[in-house]
Amino acid sequence: MLLKASSQSLTDQLAARFGERIRNRLLAAGARLPSVRQCAEQQGVSPSTVVAAYDQLLAQGLVEARKNRGFFVREAAVQEPAPGRAGPPQPPSARGPAPVNATSLIRGMFHRASNKPQPGMGVLPTEWLESTFLPAAVRKVTTTPSLHSFSLQYGEPLGDAGLRQALATKLAGLNVPVPADHIITTVGATHALDIVSRTLLRPGDPVMVEEPGWAVEFARLSALGMHLLPVPRRADGPDLQVMAKYCAVHKPKLYVSVSVFHNPTSYCLSPGSAHRLLQLANQHDFHIVEDDTYSHIAPAHATRLAALDGLQRTIYVGGFAKILAPNWRIGFIAAPEALVEPLLDTKLLTTLTTPALLEKALALCIDQGQLRRHCERIRTRLDLARSRSVKLALQAGCRFVAEPAGLFGWVDTGVDTDALSQRMLDEGYLLAPGALFHAQREPSTLMRINFATTQDAAFWKKYGELVRRM
Amino acid sequence: MLLKASSQSLTDQLAARFGERIRNRLLAAGARLPSVRQCAEQQGVSPSTVVAAYDQLLAQGLVEARKNRGFFVREAAVQEPAPGRAGPPQPPSARGPAPVNATSLIRGMFHRASNKPQPGMGVLPTEWLESTFLPAAVRKVTTTPSLHSFSLQYGEPLGDAGLRQALATKLAGLNVPVPADHIITTVGATHALDIVSRTLLRPGDPVMVEEPGWAVEFARLSALGMHLLPVPRRADGPDLQVMAKYCAVHKPKLYVSVSVFHNPTSYCLSPGSAHRLLQLANQHDFHIVEDDTYSHIAPAHATRLAALDGLQRTIYVGGFAKILAPNWRIGFIAAPEALVEPLLDTKLLTTLTTPALLEKALALCIDQGQLRRHCERIRTRLDLARSRSVKLALQAGCRFVAEPAGLFGWVDTGVDTDALSQRMLDEGYLLAPGALFHAQREPSTLMRINFATTQDAAFWKKYGELVRRM
Repeated sequence: MLLKASSQSLTDQLAARFGERIRNRLLAAGARLPSVRQCAEQQGVSPSTVVAAYDQLLAQGLVEARKNRGFFVREAAVQEPAPGRAGPPQPPSARGPAPVNATSLIRGMFHRASNKPQPGMGVLPTEWLESTFLPAAVRKVTTTPSLHSFSLQYGEPLGDAGLRQALATKLAGLNVPVPADHIITTVGATHALDIVSRTLLRPGDPVMVEEPGWAVEFARLSALGMHLLPVPRRADGPDLQVMAKYCAVHKPKLYVSVSVFHNPTSYCLSPGSAHRLLQLANQHDFHIVEDDTYSHIAPAHATRLAALDGLQRTIYVGGFAKILAPNWRIGFIAAPEALVEPLLDTKLLTTLTTPALLEKALALCIDQGQLRRHCERIRTRLDLARSRSVKLALQAGCRFVAEPAGLFGWVDTGVDTDALSQRMLDEGYLLAPGALFHAQREPSTLMRINFATTQDAAFWKKYGELVRRM
Repeated sequence: MLLKASSQSLTDQLAARFGERIRNRLLAAGARLPSVRQCAEQQGVSPSTVVAAYDQLLAQGLVEARKNRGFFVREAAVQEPAPGRAGPPQPPSARGPAPVNATSLIRGMFHRASNKPQPGMGVLPTEWLESTFLPAAVRKVTTTPSLHSFSLQYGEPLGDAGLRQALATKLAGLNVPVPADHIITTVGATHALDIVSRTLLRPGDPVMVEEPGWAVEFARLSALGMHLLPVPRRADGPDLQVMAKYCAVHKPKLYVSVSVFHNPTSYCLSPGSAHRLLQLANQHDFHIVEDDTYSHIAPAHATRLAALDGLQRTIYVGGFAKILAPNWRIGFIAAPEALVEPLLDTKLLTTLTTPALLEKALALCIDQGQLRRHCERIRTRLDLARSRSVKLALQAGCRFVAEPAGLFGWVDTGVDTDALSQRMLDEGYLLAPGALFHAQREPSTLMRINFATTQDAAFWKKYGELVRRM
């Protein structure tokens, strides 16, 4: 809220707020600012205050005026050196356009809009993850007499053997049979996906991704120079007709997919769809990387491609950021035998090895059953939160596009969610608008909600008020 | 040594030894095996034993016979699935030839040839790194009440603020002025170099590297699709005439360099050469990434590009694997202001954040002066080791191509060091042959020795014997 009693003028406050959002990528490059009249109305200030604030943003190089169309966030707004500084070299122009989708989503992950629960968040709230077993496991590993020996060498290239064995046992419980020496630990699932794409693809290669899907994956692939082929994701799986067409024309080498509790829809792959997808992969000779990030909140019997094909064409990726300790950054790849060595080469070229201390602590948590019990508690708590959130969302006039399940709800608000996000930010709430999950960032009335953080009636009250006024 | 009394036949023992080396990349793809006569003589077995062993390797698909030329390691030897397994998909052929240089060097880092000191190693021996302050720092961080809060969120995108402040202070001592918020922590210096090249270069871009130089860097850049331009490294710095020609023809965007105690020569950049190099960079508008991995064993007054240009064109990269705890995987980038945001985007796309627990522990070690005192002890110990190693190397007939300094010696043996390496491996010693430090892997009579691990008279005795017989 703008404050009349502040030592800053209303103009300065308004300009500062827009400036901060642009720098934090919460207003993406190319986005249009509200019209002067709209903005004045929304903020309860005079049009001249808005004009003066927009002028400040122009002078700072953050926005540009387009004739008869209004004010737009400049493409280069956040990447140029601060004005007035002596000539450091510009970032090379050959970098091409910044991957707007991803940086905006990924920066949003770190933006603390307020202390309120954040519906746009992609993780469980901190208080859900709290446990005594995590620090206990670290302390236990630290007092091990062998702390020296494993810290003072680079460590095992594949990752800590104890953790890989614990993961192999865990995967066997999901019907994914894999020996521990076909598992490679990574710096979170993000690093795992990066290693897979760098190993299997060369710049310019076509790659199939899910749409809607995880924009950070789109951005990473784009930054590596890959050619994205978005495959519509349906309730039971990918649109196989679109996929078959891509295969015939582009011969893609890889399909990147979340089978279980897909982000943002929480769709789960059906067994029939999985079978047909694997047939298509065999026929057209492409690999599939299956990102099972949400496995911890999913039933063991959920359909996984890796279980069907026994890791022949499927590379299975997992992580723990969604359930345990996001900052520990532990993920892994379970790979087909023929790909273990090439994937390991890429790991060594990117980070050499990974820190064994945290891997050993995680292995303890798995082996002692603490992770399993923690997941059970989280699932129960999430089920309750989902019931409550769904009820509130429906009351507020949202329509669920996908059957509510898992961590995320995919809802239609009936209004443009990019604009809605900006208005909700004014109120201290960060949303995840639908445009963020599309490769081309098309405007959308959809948004992703996190069931763990939308149980708050105050949020839905504010949401309802703003939607009615749009 | 082959053992007659073993339960394995001499043929099986010989085949197994070659097989293991090929799989560990200690015999690179394309390398020629010794002739049957040579091998029989070297191993003290009959020629028919060698013929039978080579036949086994042929049957395993590890080597191929070329008419009238002998036996060669197959290009795909290590990447194909094990024979006899039902048809998993082959790694895509479009991967192109494997970056042999790097994988062989990098795999060698993890190969334990024997319990003897290893002259080819790139790090200090484990016993040199032992300290009580490392586990104490981890325990202190772990018992901090705030352990929860930093593990349970993704953490700061730039990295732990305390560590970044400690690094800023440390860099000020090297005359590199940089605020803490222009520092980005990484998963070791390897990750830092990867982030820099992915941010500044696009696939196909030309990039200047040092020759001789660190082959893993060559391999990473090649795997990213970059076009390598090797610049000869002289005692005082890069060959600026060659560089100027590259600039005129190829317009490279980046030069990757180790200014202080260059690997493998231990050359240090002279102030004059640094000044002219920066002028050339200004004139032709390229960036320089200065990898200061060996700073911990170097004097503070050593010439660093980042100190001369105040991080205008220079991106400074550092790490701790050479001095403290290789497995902690902590490195960092100190960046020009204009590049902080783009570099941070790349970090987020590759590993999201980095583990704060180890970063906080490292910050403690720096702030409490333990790292500084540890470095002083290591320098003293290394000076003694160097004197002793140099004496032994000269007695064994080595000629120092570069003035002995730092961690590495760059010596001329007078014989082909690829062949010498294979013979020394039979004796349990891993060498770093000169070919590994050249982009084209040309045969060389040079090798890199690690002064900390070549104080052993037994090694030099065996070395002398073998060289005399070659």
